[in-house]
This record gives sequence, structure tokens and C-alpha cells, in this order.
Amino acid sequence: MKPGDSFENEFVITQEVQNGFISLFRDENPLHMDHRFAREKGFEGVVMHGNILGGFLSYFIGECLPVKNIIIHSQEIKYVKPVYLDEVLLLKAEIKNIYESVNAIEFNFAFQKKINAIVVAKGKFQIGII
Amino acid sequence: MKPGDSFENEFVITQEVQNGFISLFRDENPLHMDHRFAREKGFEGVVMHGNILGGFLSYFIGECLPVKNIIIHSQEIKYVKPVYLDEVLLLKAEIKNIYESVNAIEFNFAFQKKINAIVVAKGKFQIGII
Repeated sequence: MKPGDSFENEFVITQEVQNGFISLFRDENPLHMDHRFAREKGFEGVVMHGNILGGFLSYFIGECLPVKNIIIHSQEIKYVKPVYLDEVLLLKAEIKNIYESVNAIEFNFAFQKKINAIVVAKGKFQIGII
Repeated sequence: MKPGDSFENEFVITQEVQNGFISLFRDENPLHMDHRFAREKGFEGVVMHGNILGGFLSYFIGECLPVKNIIIHSQEIKYVKPVYLDEVLLLKAEIKNIYESVNAIEFNFAFQKKINAIVVAKGKFQIGII
């Protein structure tokens, strides 16, 4: 792996994923559960939990990179646009820096809607090679 | 809510939570699954997925704050120490800044081990009032 290398994977927040997340973590905030509330607040419908994208990052980092002997040091995410049920998202991550002295690699990433490439969330994460 | 106000909640990554997270997001990286691998890498045992703490933050933000009409703008977390199965964690969050002009509130947070107050993860998140 070297700076500029990029990796991607597709994700969808299906009803099954949303239900699983709610059942696991019990965040039943009305923005995620109540269509009428969400529409009154100006959204198209209930908004998916931002931390579902964190679960996708977990899979991406743990399973989609060319090395398995890694641990996450830090993770930052900005939620740019609401994500709705069943939207197909493309996660793209690019190596920004490699810190050889401490065996760490920093990535920039973005989740885009597959249909129009609009970025819904972006940020960075740093992993350590263990 | 005003700067300095603080909120807290207890969380535990039980076997049920870990299994639920793996079943939902399919991150089966050996650090999370293979005790021998984790010990060879210098850990006491398999390390819990960092993004499980993101699920706890989702619950905390969506359900434990005094207002429900909120959305997460951004979230940053640094993983300071590994978290192991069944450790009792205390999440403490404090309001750092309130940006009235844009209806946003910034919090600092830390997850501590309840038994000895050692911080395992820390960071900040910003929410918007909707």
C-alpha cells in the first residue's frame, strides 16, 4: 500500500440493516422512526442512523483492505447529506499518508450515492499495522 | 443545555452485542474473532470492534440527551486502549460550545472503564437542533 492507492465497496442500508441496528443499539430517536416527524423537519422521510456508516467502515477496514493485521487508531466523519432507506452508497477510500516510523496509515474516505455521485458523508481514519 | 453541562450513560459490550454487530456488518477481522491471533499481537484477547462504540454514541445522542429534535453533524473518535468483552464502560459527554447562529452544539466525550476510570476512547461530536 502506498499514498494514492484507493479502495472501494458498495453498501446499502436495507430495512434489514436498519432494523438490526435499532435492535442492537436501541436508538429509536423519532428522526429515524417517525416519517411524519422527519417530514415536518424538512427531510424526505426517516433518516438513516449515521453510525450505520460506522459499521460499514468497520467492514471496509476489517475485510476490504489488502492486509488483515490492522487496528483502527481514529476515525472522523462529517455527515453532509441525509441518507435514506435503500440508497446504494459507494464508499471510496484513498491512502493519504503512511507513517512508517509508527506503522500507521491514514486514509481519506467518502460515501457517495451511487446514482449521482453526491457525497453524503466524508472523513478520515487512521489504522495501525499490528 | 449550556456549555459545561454533562451527561453520562453506562454501556457493556456483551457477547450478544458483539455477535449482533458481527452478524449485521460482517467484519470478521481476526483481531475480533481469533483469540490466538489477538494474543500473538500483544492483546489480552480478541478486541471489540471500535465502531460498536459508535453504536453506543448513536443511542446516547438519540436517546439520552434532554432533547430529541437533533441530528448528528459530525463525530470524531480516537481509540486509546483496546476494549474487551464484558467490560463495563462509562460514556461521559460534556457540552463544549453552543453555536446559536447555526443551532449547533459541540460535545467532548470519553468512554472510561468503570472499574478504574481508564479512558479507552475519546473524541467529540457536533449535533444540530432540527
